[in-house]
Amino acid sequence: MRKEKESEVEAAEGGGDDQAAMERAFEEMAVPPWQNQITFRAMITSLLLSIVFNVIVCKLNLSTGVIPSLNVAAGLLGFAAVKAWTVMIQKCGLLKQPFTRQENTVIQTCVVASSGIAFSSGTASYLLGMSPITASQSETGNTPINVKQLSLGWMIGFVFVVSFVGLFSIVPLRRMMILKYKLTYPSGTATAYLINSFHTPKGAKLAKKQVWVLFKSFVGSFLWAFFQWFFAAADGCGFSSFPTFGLQAYNRRFYFDFSSTYVGVGMICPYMVNISLLIGAILSWGIMWPVIESKKGHWYSADIPGSSLHGIQGYRVFLAIAMILGDGLFQVVYMAILTLKSFLEQLVRRSNGVNEREEGALVEDYNERRRTDYFLKDQIPNTVAVGGYLVLALISTFVVPHIFPQLEWYQVLVAYIIAPVLAFCNAYGCGLTDWSLASNYGKLAILVFSSWVGLEKGGVVAGLASCGVMMSIVSTASDLMQDFKTGYLTLSSPRSMFISQVLGTAMGCILSPLVFWFFYKAYNVGDPEGTYPAPYALMYRGIALLGVEGFSSLPKNCLKMAIVCFVAAVLINVLIAMLRKWETKYRIYRLIPSPMCMAIPFYLGGYFAIDMCVGSLILFVWQMNNRKHASELSPAVASGLICGDSLWGIPAAILALAGVSPPICMKFLGAEANKRVDYILGG
Amino acid sequence: MRKEKESEVEAAEGGGDDQAAMERAFEEMAVPPWQNQITFRAMITSLLLSIVFNVIVCKLNLSTGVIPSLNVAAGLLGFAAVKAWTVMIQKCGLLKQPFTRQENTVIQTCVVASSGIAFSSGTASYLLGMSPITASQSETGNTPINVKQLSLGWMIGFVFVVSFVGLFSIVPLRRMMILKYKLTYPSGTATAYLINSFHTPKGAKLAKKQVWVLFKSFVGSFLWAFFQWFFAAADGCGFSSFPTFGLQAYNRRFYFDFSSTYVGVGMICPYMVNISLLIGAILSWGIMWPVIESKKGHWYSADIPGSSLHGIQGYRVFLAIAMILGDGLFQVVYMAILTLKSFLEQLVRRSNGVNEREEGALVEDYNERRRTDYFLKDQIPNTVAVGGYLVLALISTFVVPHIFPQLEWYQVLVAYIIAPVLAFCNAYGCGLTDWSLASNYGKLAILVFSSWVGLEKGGVVAGLASCGVMMSIVSTASDLMQDFKTGYLTLSSPRSMFISQVLGTAMGCILSPLVFWFFYKAYNVGDPEGTYPAPYALMYRGIALLGVEGFSSLPKNCLKMAIVCFVAAVLINVLIAMLRKWETKYRIYRLIPSPMCMAIPFYLGGYFAIDMCVGSLILFVWQMNNRKHASELSPAVASGLICGDSLWGIPAAILALAGVSPPICMKFLGAEANKRVDYILGG
Repeated sequence: MRKEKESEVEAAEGGGDDQAAMERAFEEMAVPPWQNQITFRAMITSLLLSIVFNVIVCKLNLSTGVIPSLNVAAGLLGFAAVKAWTVMIQKCGLLKQPFTRQENTVIQTCVVASSGIAFSSGTASYLLGMSPITASQSETGNTPINVKQLSLGWMIGFVFVVSFVGLFSIVPLRRMMILKYKLTYPSGTATAYLINSFHTPKGAKLAKKQVWVLFKSFVGSFLWAFFQWFFAAADGCGFSSFPTFGLQAYNRRFYFDFSSTYVGVGMICPYMVNISLLIGAILSWGIMWPVIESKKGHWYSADIPGSSLHGIQGYRVFLAIAMILGDGLFQVVYMAILTLKSFLEQLVRRSNGVNEREEGALVEDYNERRRTDYFLKDQIPNTVAVGGYLVLALISTFVVPHIFPQLEWYQVLVAYIIAPVLAFCNAYGCGLTDWSLASNYGKLAILVFSSWVGLEKGGVVAGLASCGVMMSIVSTASDLMQDFKTGYLTLSSPRSMFISQVLGTAMGCILSPLVFWFFYKAYNVGDPEGTYPAPYALMYRGIALLGVEGFSSLPKNCLKMAIVCFVAAVLINVLIAMLRKWETKYRIYRLIPSPMCMAIPFYLGGYFAIDMCVGSLILFVWQMNNRKHASELSPAVASGLICGDSLWGIPAAILALAGVSPPICMKFLGAEANKRVDYILGG
Repeated sequence: MRKEKESEVEAAEGGGDDQAAMERAFEEMAVPPWQNQITFRAMITSLLLSIVFNVIVCKLNLSTGVIPSLNVAAGLLGFAAVKAWTVMIQKCGLLKQPFTRQENTVIQTCVVASSGIAFSSGTASYLLGMSPITASQSETGNTPINVKQLSLGWMIGFVFVVSFVGLFSIVPLRRMMILKYKLTYPSGTATAYLINSFHTPKGAKLAKKQVWVLFKSFVGSFLWAFFQWFFAAADGCGFSSFPTFGLQAYNRRFYFDFSSTYVGVGMICPYMVNISLLIGAILSWGIMWPVIESKKGHWYSADIPGSSLHGIQGYRVFLAIAMILGDGLFQVVYMAILTLKSFLEQLVRRSNGVNEREEGALVEDYNERRRTDYFLKDQIPNTVAVGGYLVLALISTFVVPHIFPQLEWYQVLVAYIIAPVLAFCNAYGCGLTDWSLASNYGKLAILVFSSWVGLEKGGVVAGLASCGVMMSIVSTASDLMQDFKTGYLTLSSPRSMFISQVLGTAMGCILSPLVFWFFYKAYNVGDPEGTYPAPYALMYRGIALLGVEGFSSLPKNCLKMAIVCFVAAVLINVLIAMLRKWETKYRIYRLIPSPMCMAIPFYLGGYFAIDMCVGSLILFVWQMNNRKHASELSPAVASGLICGDSLWGIPAAILALAGVSPPICMKFLGAEANKRVDYILGG
C-alpha cells in the first residue's frame, strides 16, 4: 500500500497558482552543469539518509507493511543536512559551491531510489516468504524444494541483478511522458514544489520552521521510544501491549499501542485510508473471526496450532489475499483501459494537427520553456538505454536460475520480455493517479509462475522469485519517472537524475538486505504474535500456494468467503470509479473505503489502524484550530514522529543482539491472575 | 502548607494600575442592599461548590497535605455557575435580579469558608492522629486513654463547637485592619480583582475564555483519572505505581505518578515551593535515609516493622517535625516582631498628627471613598461580636471536656483566653504576607497542652484536641479578614460577608467530617504504604508524643539530627529575612528553599514533588512561549486539572464501597520476577 497523501497533492495543485512565475524568481540563479549537480557532499548526505530510510521502511515492512510516502521527509531532511553543512562551511569561509535546488533534487532522488529498493527487494514479502519460518506456518508446501534458507550473500546478489533493469527499460520514454503527455506525477510534483520553495528567500523561512518542528518531533519521538524500551523486558510487556480498551478488546487486537511511528503514518495518509483500515479491522476481528471461531471443530479441526493456515489463520490470510487480489486486478485492468483511452486521445489529437500548435503555444510560457530547455539539454542516448536493458536482462537470465534452481532460464527470459510493457503501464498510471501498482503485478507473477512450475518442482519458491523480478522492474521504472518529473520542475539535468537514481539503487541493493539481516538476527521476525510479524511474507507465500495447489488446501467455507471478498473488492472499486466519473457534485466516492486497505487488518488486527486514526484525529483537530499551520507543519511533525521512533530501532536492535534486555516488565493482568501473581511473589 | 501563589499576587499588584479608576466603570451599576447580596441561587451554588472543594481538600489532605490556594478556582467556578444559570433564566424571560459582583463575592466567601473548615477541622491531622490506626504506628502512647475511636457524631459536634468562635473574635477589629492599617491581604485582593474583572464588559470576555479552558482541562483530567482507574486492580498496580525512573528509584519513592491533581497544584504553587520539595526529597530519600538504613541493627533494631516510629520511620517523622517546628517558631516570632513594629509606627504617626490628614487626603481618591462608604454602611455591632464570642466560648468550654474527658474545662478556658490574641497576630501577619500560620499555633498548642496533661492522664489526645480548638479560631479569623478585604474591594456589605462566612462555616462543619468519613470507610486511610497515607496525622501525633514523653522515645542519634534540622530551619529563615531586607538588587532570597516545604517529602518521598515540578515545567515552557496566555489561563488549567482528578475521587470511592474493583492490574516487574510470573501463568 503505497499511496500519496492527499494534502500534499492538494498543496502541489494549489501551489501552482502561487508559483505561476516560479522560474522568474530563479532567473538570477545559475543552473550548474550536470556533473556539478552530483556533488560529494550530496552523495554522503544521501548515504546517511538512505540508511535512516532503509531502517524506517524495513521496520514498517516487518511490522505491518503499511508504508507512507517518505518523499517529503527525504526532501526536508536532505535540505536540513546540506544547508546546515554549507552554512557551517560558509562561516569558516571555505564554501566553494553554493547549495542549489538541483543538488537537493539529486539527494532526494537518491534517497527515494534507495528506500524504494527496501520495498521492492521484498525482504519482508517474497524473500521472507521463502524462509522456513514462514513455510512452517502452513502444512502444505513445506517441502525442501519449496523452501529456501535466507542468507545475506544470495539476497544481495539477487537484488543487484534484478533492480537495475527497470531503470533502463523506461529511460527512452521520458520525453513522451513528461513533455508530450504532461503527466502530473503528484508526488514528484509536490516534492519539486517543496524543494523549489526551500530555495526561494520566502520559502527558506518556512523551511527553517519546518526543520525545527521536524527536529522537535523527531527528538520527542526518539525519547519516547527510548522510554518505552525500559518497560518491555519480554514479549507481552510494555506499552506495545497496553490494553487501552480493556483486556477483551486487547485479545481481539483492538488497542492503542503507543507507537509514534504509526501515529505519524496516520497523519500522512489520507483520512479515508485510516478509516478503511479501521473498518476492515472491525469487520474482520470484530465480527467475522469471532463468528468463524464459534465454528471451531466444525469448519476446522480444534486441535491444530493457532498459527496453522488450516485453522482460523487460514481464513485471515486467504480472505485478505482475495480482497487484495480483487482490488489489484481491478486496478490493473482499469489502468490499462485508462492508458489505452488516453493514448487514443493523444493519437486523435495529433492526427487533427492540434497537438503541435498547442504544445508550441504552451512553450511560450516562461516556466515551461525554461524547464523544457534544461530537460532536453543533457541527453541519455537511446542506444545506451536499450543496450543497458538487454545486457542486464541477459545477465539476470543467466544468474537468477543459479540462485533459484526452481526457475528455468527461459522462464526468467519470458518475465523480461513482458516486463517493459507492464513497466510502461505502471509508470503511465502512476503519472495519472500517483498509485504504483508494482506489488499487484508481482502478485500476478506469483500466480502465473508458481502454477507454471508446479508444486513438485518448487513452484512456491519459483513464483516468489519471479515476483521479485517483476516487482523490481515495475517499481523502479515508475520511481524513475517520478524523479524525472521532479527534475523537470527543478531544472535538474535528466542525466544527473539518472545517475543519482543508479547510485541510489546501488546503495539500496546493499543497505536493504543488510538492514533486514540486522532485524532478522536481532528479533523473531515472522512470528505472528511477535513485534515483527511481517504480514506480507505469509500472504505472498499464500498466493504462491494458491498457484501451485489450487483451492484444495483451504479450510471449509474459506473458498466461498474468499470469492465473496474478491467480488466485493472488485464491485467496490467499480462503484468508486463510476461515482468518480458521474457524481461530481458531492464527490461521494471519497467516502467509500478502499478494499486494499480494509484487507490489511484482516491478518494483523486493528491496533495499528487505531494508531493511524489517532494520527488522523490529531491532524483533524489541528486543522480545525489552524488550517494553515496544520498544512504547513503536519508533514514535518509526522516525518519526525516516524523517523525518531524508527531510528530508535537501531540501538534497540543492537541492544537485543548484545543480549541486553530491558530491566522492567510492564505487565497487564486480569484481577484474578493478579491475585495469583501477588500470592506467588509474596510467598 | 498554605501559601498564596506568586503570580496571583503579582496579577493583583499589577492589576492595580489598570484598575485605577475601577469604580468609575461600575458607577452606573447599583449596589444591592446586603439582604439581596445573599440570594437563594448564591447559596445553592455555594453548597454545590462546597461539596466539590471539600472533596478536593480532603483528598489533598489525606494524600500529601499540600494544599494550594483555591480562591481563584472558587471565584471562577462560582461565576461560571451563576452566570450560566442567569443567562439561561434570562432567555426564558424569568430573570428578576441581575448577577452582581457582590453576589459573586458572597459565593466565593462561602465556598472558601467551607473549604477552610476542611483544613482546620483536622480530619487528616489532629483528629486522625487520635485514631487507633495512627496510634498503632508507635509503641509509646498506644494506651486506651491516649487513643480515641473516630465516629461521625462527636466529630461533627466538636467541629461545630470550635469553628464559629474565631469569627466573632476578630469582627470588631475589621475597621482597624482594613481602613486604618490598609493591610494588603494579597489573596483577598487578587480574588477581588478577579471578580471585578469578570463583571466589566472586557473582563467578561476573558472570563468566558478562562471558563472554557477550565472546562476542557477539567473534563480531560476527569477522563484521565477514569482511564487510570481501570488499571489499578490492587495496591501496587496502575499508573500511580509507575516506576518512571526505574525500579530502584521507585523503591526510593522517586517516580512520576501521573496524578493530574499534583501537576495542577504545581502549576499554582510558586516555582520555589516545588523546587524546595524536590530538594527536600533528594536530601532525605536520596541521601539521609539510605545512610541511616545502612546503620540498621546499630542505630535501631533490625527486626521491628517498617512502620514503627522506633525504626527508620521514626527518623522520617521526627526530623520532619523538627524542621516544621523550627520554621513555624521562626515565623511566629518574626510575625510578632513585625506586628509590634508596624503597630509602633502607627502610633508614632498618629501622635505626630500625620495620620488623620493623610487618611483624609486618600479618601479623596474616588475608588477609596466609594469603597469606604460601602464598607461602613452596614455595621455589625461590637456588642454582638463580643457577646457572641463569650457565649460560644462558654458553650465550647462546657462541651469540649465532654467529648474529650482528657481535657479539663479550665484548660479549654485558658485556650479561649489566649486565642483572640493569637488570632489577631495571625490575621495581621496574614494581611502583610499572605501566610496563615494557623497550623503552627496549633502545633505549639499540642506541645503545651500535652505536656501539661501528661501521658497517664491522656496527654496525647488532650494535646491534639487543644490543637483543634486553637487552630480553628486562628484559621477562621484570618480567613474572615481576607474576605472582608475582598468585600471592601467589591463594595460588598460587611454584614453579608459575615453572614456568608457563617453559613459557609456551617456547611463546612457538616460536609468536612462527612466527606472524610466517606474516604475513611472506602479506603485504608492512614496506611503509610497506601494511596492515602495522611502524613500529618502521624506527625501531629508525633508532636504530642514529644510533648508527653520528652525526647526519650526517639531512636539513636535521632535527637541530634532533629536538633540540627530545627536549627537549620531557623537559620535558613533568618537568612531569607536578612536577604529580603538588605539584598534588594538581585533578590537572592527568592532562590533559597523553604524549610517547611523541604520537610514534607522527608516522610512522603519525592513522587508528588516530581508531579509538582512537572507542573512548574509546563508553566515555565508556557510562559516562554506566550507569557500573557500563560498568566491569563494557567490558573484555569491548573484548577481544572485539580478539580477533574479530585472529583473522580467520588465515583471511585463509591465503586470501592460497592466492592467493584478495577478489571486490570498494570504491574511493574523486574526482569527476574517477570520470568517467574510468566512461568507460573503459563504452567
